[in-house]
Amino acid sequence: MAITPLLMLLDERVLRPRLDHADVHRPDEPDADASPVIIAGFGRAGQVVARILRARGVPFTALERDPDHLDFVRRFGSKVYFGDAGHSEVLRAAGAERARLMVLTVGDPEESARVARVVRKQFPQLPVFATARNRQHALLLKELCVLFGIRETFASSLELAEAVLGGLGVEAGQASRAVQLFREHDEQTLERQYAFRQDQDALVQSSREAADELRLLIESDEELAADTPA
Amino acid sequence: MAITPLLMLLDERVLRPRLDHADVHRPDEPDADASPVIIAGFGRAGQVVARILRARGVPFTALERDPDHLDFVRRFGSKVYFGDAGHSEVLRAAGAERARLMVLTVGDPEESARVARVVRKQFPQLPVFATARNRQHALLLKELCVLFGIRETFASSLELAEAVLGGLGVEAGQASRAVQLFREHDEQTLERQYAFRQDQDALVQSSREAADELRLLIESDEELAADTPA
Repeated sequence: MAITPLLMLLDERVLRPRLDHADVHRPDEPDADASPVIIAGFGRAGQVVARILRARGVPFTALERDPDHLDFVRRFGSKVYFGDAGHSEVLRAAGAERARLMVLTVGDPEESARVARVVRKQFPQLPVFATARNRQHALLLKELCVLFGIRETFASSLELAEAVLGGLGVEAGQASRAVQLFREHDEQTLERQYAFRQDQDALVQSSREAADELRLLIESDEELAADTPA
Repeated sequence: MAITPLLMLLDERVLRPRLDHADVHRPDEPDADASPVIIAGFGRAGQVVARILRARGVPFTALERDPDHLDFVRRFGSKVYFGDAGHSEVLRAAGAERARLMVLTVGDPEESARVARVVRKQFPQLPVFATARNRQHALLLKELCVLFGIRETFASSLELAEAVLGGLGVEAGQASRAVQLFREHDEQTLERQYAFRQDQDALVQSSREAADELRLLIESDEELAADTPA
């Protein structure tokens, strides 16, 4: 991969043929009318948000590094940066100083946190709305002042559970309430984990954290079970 | 990995120390009182469903192959098979003949489809409720008669989009309606893809399918945009 410090462009031998007709702006050619939304990471979640913004006519600028998503980005016809959102110059050129918010849908937790750190430091006025891979990632994003962070498989898992309860003969309203109760309980548990995390030494090993998390989840689930009618 | 035909047990050198105190049943020791629910795949989605079932006191039997999830499975204290749900003997021993439903939360699309095929063939009476990785996986599961299949990041992506619209100043009710409209539109598009897929030669290359999917998505999103007030 040939990487230039500013652009982090993907290898031109790969990109060139695909980009000929795409509406590609270079981060070193700042744009007068910046989009109100920057989408960092154009995978499954980023694409859904982008399609909803598009349906409402809200312009966005997408930053994506994975060549697998290039076709989708390109066909979208929006402003596209094939850049690394973890670089402040790339973010600045994408309009981070004037954008109203960032959608952070980078799948890899470490990469996602790297972007969030740069935003917090360089563009502290830019609210970040994110997906997290799992609980640990969600906690990390919260620490990095991400305004909204939802675990990427959480909501679908709840819908699946509700359907499963229905399949077991639980009446619809009751299934819905059971899942809602669990959601509130689980989100409160996440808040407790967050408070606990901040009390801890920052360098606790992640394996230790996972064991603590498991114990906390099981204990707090038991409280919920005790409160739930069979 | 030492694999026995029946169990597909993970390497005993890895498993043995962990299993000593776990409530592990072997699929070759069929259980008189089978659980009403079999959970195949105990990753993020499977764990959420399991915790909700547990809160309601619904027994389940989990089948998992990934050693990363063993600790979680084990601490759960339920009946655990470290087995491959793609083998009918394993499923039978897990109680597939008497179970009321299967939760299929195997992440890898090919592996997930393999399990669904075995269930359809060997246990056609067993309703399957599943998560899908993406649209193609969702379509495949539908073909395999999976009763309920939700894309694993879809619902969280919609919630993220709703929060983003809120962050852009869109009034809450309007943001909620926009996202609901998009959801209905997207699910209808999936139905159209499904109908289209059945008309096609079964051996269309997947890259061709991806291009078709993209064109269909963009065209149908344009219809939605035309119907949506700015």
